[in-house]
Amino acid sequence: MMTGAEYRQSLNDGRETFFEGEPVANVAEHPILGITVDSAASGYDRFYKPDAGAVGEFMKVPSSAEELREQVELHETVDLLTHVTYASVMTLLTAADRIEESLPENAARIRAYVDEVQAKDLRITQCITDAKGDRSRRPSNQDDPDQFVRVVERRQDGIVIRGAKLHISAASMGHELMTIPTKAMKAGEEDYAVACMVPVNATGVKIINTTYAPRHEDTRDFPISGQQHTPEGFVIFDDVFVPTERVFLDGHAEFAGMFAHSLGLWERLGGLAAMVRSYDALTGFAQLIAEANGLEKTGHIREKISEMLINSTLVRSTLEAAVENCQVTADGVAFPDELYTNAGKYHGAANWSLMVRHLHDIGGGSILTAPGIADFENQSVGHLARKYMGTMQSVDGLYRAKLFHAIRDFTADAYGGWNAVTNIQAGGGLYAQRIVSRLHYDMTRAKRTALEVGGLSEFADEIL
Amino acid sequence: MMTGAEYRQSLNDGRETFFEGEPVANVAEHPILGITVDSAASGYDRFYKPDAGAVGEFMKVPSSAEELREQVELHETVDLLTHVTYASVMTLLTAADRIEESLPENAARIRAYVDEVQAKDLRITQCITDAKGDRSRRPSNQDDPDQFVRVVERRQDGIVIRGAKLHISAASMGHELMTIPTKAMKAGEEDYAVACMVPVNATGVKIINTTYAPRHEDTRDFPISGQQHTPEGFVIFDDVFVPTERVFLDGHAEFAGMFAHSLGLWERLGGLAAMVRSYDALTGFAQLIAEANGLEKTGHIREKISEMLINSTLVRSTLEAAVENCQVTADGVAFPDELYTNAGKYHGAANWSLMVRHLHDIGGGSILTAPGIADFENQSVGHLARKYMGTMQSVDGLYRAKLFHAIRDFTADAYGGWNAVTNIQAGGGLYAQRIVSRLHYDMTRAKRTALEVGGLSEFADEIL
Amino acid sequence: MMTGAEYRQSLNDGRETFFEGEPVANVAEHPILGITVDSAASGYDRFYKPDAGAVGEFMKVPSSAEELREQVELHETVDLLTHVTYASVMTLLTAADRIEESLPENAARIRAYVDEVQAKDLRITQCITDAKGDRSRRPSNQDDPDQFVRVVERRQDGIVIRGAKLHISAASMGHELMTIPTKAMKAGEEDYAVACMVPVNATGVKIINTTYAPRHEDTRDFPISGQQHTPEGFVIFDDVFVPTERVFLDGHAEFAGMFAHSLGLWERLGGLAAMVRSYDALTGFAQLIAEANGLEKTGHIREKISEMLINSTLVRSTLEAAVENCQVTADGVAFPDELYTNAGKYHGAANWSLMVRHLHDIGGGSILTAPGIADFENQSVGHLARKYMGTMQSVDGLYRAKLFHAIRDFTADAYGGWNAVTNIQAGGGLYAQRIVSRLHYDMTRAKRTALEVGGLSEFADEIL
Amino acid sequence: MMTGAEYRQSLNDGRETFFEGEPVANVAEHPILGITVDSAASGYDRFYKPDAGAVGEFMKVPSSAEELREQVELHETVDLLTHVTYASVMTLLTAADRIEESLPENAARIRAYVDEVQAKDLRITQCITDAKGDRSRRPSNQDDPDQFVRVVERRQDGIVIRGAKLHISAASMGHELMTIPTKAMKAGEEDYAVACMVPVNATGVKIINTTYAPRHEDTRDFPISGQQHTPEGFVIFDDVFVPTERVFLDGHAEFAGMFAHSLGLWERLGGLAAMVRSYDALTGFAQLIAEANGLEKTGHIREKISEMLINSTLVRSTLEAAVENCQVTADGVAFPDELYTNAGKYHGAANWSLMVRHLHDIGGGSILTAPGIADFENQSVGHLARKYMGTMQSVDGLYRAKLFHAIRDFTADAYGGWNAVTNIQAGGGLYAQRIVSRLHYDMTRAKRTALEVGGLSEFADEIL
Repeated sequence: MMTGAEYRQSLNDGRETFFEGEPVANVAEHPILGITVDSAASGYDRFYKPDAGAVGEFMKVPSSAEELREQVELHETVDLLTHVTYASVMTLLTAADRIEESLPENAARIRAYVDEVQAKDLRITQCITDAKGDRSRRPSNQDDPDQFVRVVERRQDGIVIRGAKLHISAASMGHELMTIPTKAMKAGEEDYAVACMVPVNATGVKIINTTYAPRHEDTRDFPISGQQHTPEGFVIFDDVFVPTERVFLDGHAEFAGMFAHSLGLWERLGGLAAMVRSYDALTGFAQLIAEANGLEKTGHIREKISEMLINSTLVRSTLEAAVENCQVTADGVAFPDELYTNAGKYHGAANWSLMVRHLHDIGGGSILTAPGIADFENQSVGHLARKYMGTMQSVDGLYRAKLFHAIRDFTADAYGGWNAVTNIQAGGGLYAQRIVSRLHYDMTRAKRTALEVGGLSEFADEIL
Repeated sequence: MMTGAEYRQSLNDGRETFFEGEPVANVAEHPILGITVDSAASGYDRFYKPDAGAVGEFMKVPSSAEELREQVELHETVDLLTHVTYASVMTLLTAADRIEESLPENAARIRAYVDEVQAKDLRITQCITDAKGDRSRRPSNQDDPDQFVRVVERRQDGIVIRGAKLHISAASMGHELMTIPTKAMKAGEEDYAVACMVPVNATGVKIINTTYAPRHEDTRDFPISGQQHTPEGFVIFDDVFVPTERVFLDGHAEFAGMFAHSLGLWERLGGLAAMVRSYDALTGFAQLIAEANGLEKTGHIREKISEMLINSTLVRSTLEAAVENCQVTADGVAFPDELYTNAGKYHGAANWSLMVRHLHDIGGGSILTAPGIADFENQSVGHLARKYMGTMQSVDGLYRAKLFHAIRDFTADAYGGWNAVTNIQAGGGLYAQRIVSRLHYDMTRAKRTALEVGGLSEFADEIL
Repeated sequence: MMTGAEYRQSLNDGRETFFEGEPVANVAEHPILGITVDSAASGYDRFYKPDAGAVGEFMKVPSSAEELREQVELHETVDLLTHVTYASVMTLLTAADRIEESLPENAARIRAYVDEVQAKDLRITQCITDAKGDRSRRPSNQDDPDQFVRVVERRQDGIVIRGAKLHISAASMGHELMTIPTKAMKAGEEDYAVACMVPVNATGVKIINTTYAPRHEDTRDFPISGQQHTPEGFVIFDDVFVPTERVFLDGHAEFAGMFAHSLGLWERLGGLAAMVRSYDALTGFAQLIAEANGLEKTGHIREKISEMLINSTLVRSTLEAAVENCQVTADGVAFPDELYTNAGKYHGAANWSLMVRHLHDIGGGSILTAPGIADFENQSVGHLARKYMGTMQSVDGLYRAKLFHAIRDFTADAYGGWNAVTNIQAGGGLYAQRIVSRLHYDMTRAKRTALEVGGLSEFADEIL
Repeated sequence: MMTGAEYRQSLNDGRETFFEGEPVANVAEHPILGITVDSAASGYDRFYKPDAGAVGEFMKVPSSAEELREQVELHETVDLLTHVTYASVMTLLTAADRIEESLPENAARIRAYVDEVQAKDLRITQCITDAKGDRSRRPSNQDDPDQFVRVVERRQDGIVIRGAKLHISAASMGHELMTIPTKAMKAGEEDYAVACMVPVNATGVKIINTTYAPRHEDTRDFPISGQQHTPEGFVIFDDVFVPTERVFLDGHAEFAGMFAHSLGLWERLGGLAAMVRSYDALTGFAQLIAEANGLEKTGHIREKISEMLINSTLVRSTLEAAVENCQVTADGVAFPDELYTNAGKYHGAANWSLMVRHLHDIGGGSILTAPGIADFENQSVGHLARKYMGTMQSVDGLYRAKLFHAIRDFTADAYGGWNAVTNIQAGGGLYAQRIVSRLHYDMTRAKRTALEVGGLSEFADEIL
């Protein structure tokens, strides 16, 4: 396994990555991108074991509701890059099972690849979303055929791919890009049915980074995003060669959607658990600032907080139900229930803006205008800022200001905007989340119930 | 135990009950009220056992999540009067435990009473909500001191009570009125801290019945409410004497709220299970009518149904979470988690109107204007009604008309209005349900999460 | 002109109309349908003038914002049948203008017909909505070709039509059925492009009536629907011959949608004004019952009422804006602005269920269970009902009970269900109302504003 | 009058103002604060007239609906500092009228002051919101008596004030601080009933600035906030002497709330007009990005945009209704209707988060991750960024990226957060806006309507 220091060095591998129009010489030493590297390095150090052949402790396959719960708890404390590596490996193994019968050779390649990755202790990021071009047209029917990643050449020893993948978290900080189709493909779209692993430093890979990280001199006013942030990569495959042993799917359109679905099985629960935590945090912030403002007993404030905590409870109940009703596969792998998970994520995403509105309504304008930490240190006005940001003897003005900064950072500044958009877009937007929920809902039970309630059971045989 | 026939006879006991301004001579034979009696009689027959000392099978105390689930399932198929009798007896036993230490004599009376009720196989209804007068004033501060049921006289052998209890389901069809305070009382309100059992035919008890039952000649257009309905009793205690052995609380204000809370523990889960069922029914109706209209694949219709099924899933997930996280008392009695139950009922109540709006939006105007069943039997127009109510070869016009009648009955007619109001008011209105949710939510966890997320853990000791 | 008495007699003309499976011998004398006739008869008496050639005062063409306002006010006090007659005549004249150039002969027929109707002082109802069959298919592509009214035979002197029109308010109480297409037709659907006038007593016309009218013995508990109700007709054209002079459109598919659109111009404003009135009523009921309950100063009650009154104000502001921004045609006819009218009706329809939910939340369970008026007259319990329905000295129990009955009747009983569905369905359901709003919104202005706000005006020429 | 250049010099007057912990030597030359100064300077140049005694053209008093409309249009194009100066002067004159009778001397001082300000062509900012301390307590009952600005000393020639005013837009860029009470005061709170004018450079005035201005090197990715931004001042009165002629209220508690109310009359309409513009912009952004994504004809996208444009229309209709129903005072000054204005602002504020949610849902993840303008200029990846940000031949990738940046800047970054909080908080939060709406709604009309609709007019005399 690698130590954090070894990991940092490993990134200096000639990768072509860009930030604000300039190439980045060494990601680990970049003033902004380097912070994400630091976080990933700490993940390496946390799980490091010196024995040859050791595998990270985070690589566990849950086989029961109990173990699903433990997995959720562990991964809540893990850095993002470690987490996505885990999800990627599990996705690959799940996919291998599913194509075993039809494409045994590809399944074998996947298993060999996973062994290699674990042996080298590499980090994998997930390249799914294509540029997509005109959303109303199929991949094969675009003005520019490269709007979905595709095979542009097939050689003896591998393939050449072209296209771009968007919103790839921490793409510049991993070693390998798990490149899989964004959706199911149809006959005639074989070139788009490509899944493969691409090293970040492969020739032709170019990554443009964007981030919500604050650019302020003093990042103490950004207690969350100033400490930790993850850039998103705009990953371009400018005719990249991929050797055959790293190609897991090429041309079998019928399996194109399966990789993303397998990933979903592994990503979903973590996303819901994070939502539960965020909902508790929003509710907690509302209560804390209400108390600091002296308003926690005011009727309309309590009403808003009640609505918030009920929403938190609803989201949490879906997590409970999803874990309790997990499906254990024939191989003994436990997956959370898809319906409850989706319904929970949907409710969390759809109501995020309302939760934030309540928080802003309760908190007041100082969410935006609280003096900065440096202002509190100024000899001329610091003590006055503290005096007037305090509200009563028991509430220190500096504490209250810090609370406002945390709320602003989480909900009303660059990171807040990132949260708002990301919650909605994760899983393909609210519309896609509704479709998935519909797919898993037991509509026959609902129709039977309606017929029973309506005294129409005589029609059940005919209608259901 | 009693048979259904014996039960019917038992109601002819001189009780004073009124319907539409007239006294009802014999409830069991009344054309409208009698239908509820029929339903209760069938409950008697279902559970009848001839052995002396037998107790109804429905009288079980759950001791685990598994048994809670079974209880829910059993009570979904039980008639209302049997169900409220069960909940009443359990409430009394729970209350007996809670006052055991402070009021051992009262606890003993309760236990003796329960033995008697079970021996006689009687039915109990629950008298809780007072007339309440001016809602902004306490019981002891009303223009009319009788707005909350109170003790107006204390005698050697018992007490005399006066007041009224409102919205008492099936009050005229039971044998005993479990009369308990609507809320907690304070010092100075001792006369209002009264809990006792009153026979329906006690002198001074007068009940005015109201009901959503259709008055139409042909009730086939009301496939739900035409078959089954429960009148609500406006129960007046016009100076009713209650002998001491039936008085379970008199003057101990500190215990006044406990009876209603104990009842809540037993009523809550059934209410949530019914909500889950109703939500599935609303979703199922929407899907059935969309299919009958040829619209099940239309975008905006699917979107609305998706929103409905997600809400159904949210409510169901709270039921799952409430049962899984049940609290088992020292005595081994399992109660569902109060937070999840309340959040689920709140969400169900708050979104009922939206669910119904979606159903009406999807169904169309024929919810209101579908010809009646008798119209379909008319020789001159029946076949034409059938022709034009049909939409395609696979959809019979009569089936579709019946579906519309069921939807109208359930959501857009007298029973629909009853559903709308009752869902909101059960548990005291949306405001009260929010309060209860707030009481049970783990706000300290939420505040700690907020502090952690906001990088403010340094303040945790001070703030939490 | 006709007097009310003459009108009543005129209905005894051999029309085939049905109620609850039975033919109705004489509509004016029917115990339920007759009440609507009474209302229409009073409209006749109100506007009666003995002079030959007189025309009802309600037949005015507005030519300015000021006159639009007056029209709205007048029609708020007019009975439904008089109102729909007015709207029908105006629709016909508007349509005549629009087809003048292309189909001068048809325009002439319309004008002649209008003269005749005004001379005879007849009442017209509006037959628009077809049975529609499978909503996902065009009229010409149904399993049953009669699902939209169509011409089945063309003769020398007229046409024969077949089909059904649904939800036709007061169809059995008028003299003439203005039968127009429900929507635009395409090439190949010429037989469905038919607009004509059909006497209610024409051979082959059969009407099935449905109504929300209460069937209770004592209708005093239904202070609204017990006094006034309008049945909906399910109007069947069972091969009805229509002479040429009453055929206004036959086969010109390009004009099929124009009649319904012209009707919309005249119906819309009245619908919005009624919505404004209903919203004020809902808000007023909420305030009245809050005051009667002693809750008008309670925080959460005030919040809900505030939300209600803001919604009332929003709907009212669209009425103000629609009238102020009316478009006056070249002929000097003033039509309300289509965008504001639609947005207002949409908001009113979409939020109706929330308004009602708030009202039910504020009012409490006695909306359902208040004793009936007859109960208050019973010697044994009447005085007790009054005592306990009262809340304080200033609130009479009978007044409060009547308030509950009015709220139940308006929102939580048969008429309440009718209100709920009708508000959503008027104008074709919420989806159709959104489409119409989109058609009239100035999207170019919005896009230009976005480009300006976003500093992207450089792209305006290219994009707009 | 002053030119822009003279204005810039005038700010170098020894004022004590702070930014990120450091004193600002010269506001006009500060890299961030200076941008706001530039904007204000352009306002000076725009209205400059060389004649002695000239007054800015923007200083007009509307006397009709027509002139109100013109005022709104003019002020939409005016810089913030010019606008608040206008509103301040009008507020002072309105207040002078209102105190004329009771406090003629104070009224005279106001008028003299206004003459002076106009002669010197100064800019005024509005200091209203106090620090407020514990929101559940009155000003006189705080742990720290300085939580509301108060008079701490009264001298022969003036008063000394202490306290802080928060969220004061552009406080550091004006010449004068119009310091008025945040709310009505009661007997015993006379020291808090203080209204006066304070020069920004008065001894003891200290201002801490905060701003959403981007700190990025390349502000082209912030097409809105990178060009224009207004800092908020945290204005501290650290024992500031105010000479008598600048004191407009001192100790007359009964007039304390009047100044803020007068300001409201002048600020309200501009705020609503800005909301109308923002709503159109949000709708326009949604349509533009949907078109750029090829999704403008997709069902669920159209539905969301329809909901957005209906909301835009509702807000616009309140502006129309507020202007049309303006109240003209005895002096001939036209004020917009308070109810319509408030309802419109409330609806706009309450639905802002939903509008933004829809925009984020429609736009997709590239709102966050679109490459920066500088990335498009990089030789190595610029052309690829453009290729993959394009969606079809007609949509240039750079245009689409700029559209994403505008959307992010407006809704999902620092300025977006500022918009979200400010919309809710303007006017005191949603709760306060509801109260104001309630105050102006004609509840008697609503109650009368309810009684009429409910057939209860017999009670009208008694109840209304």
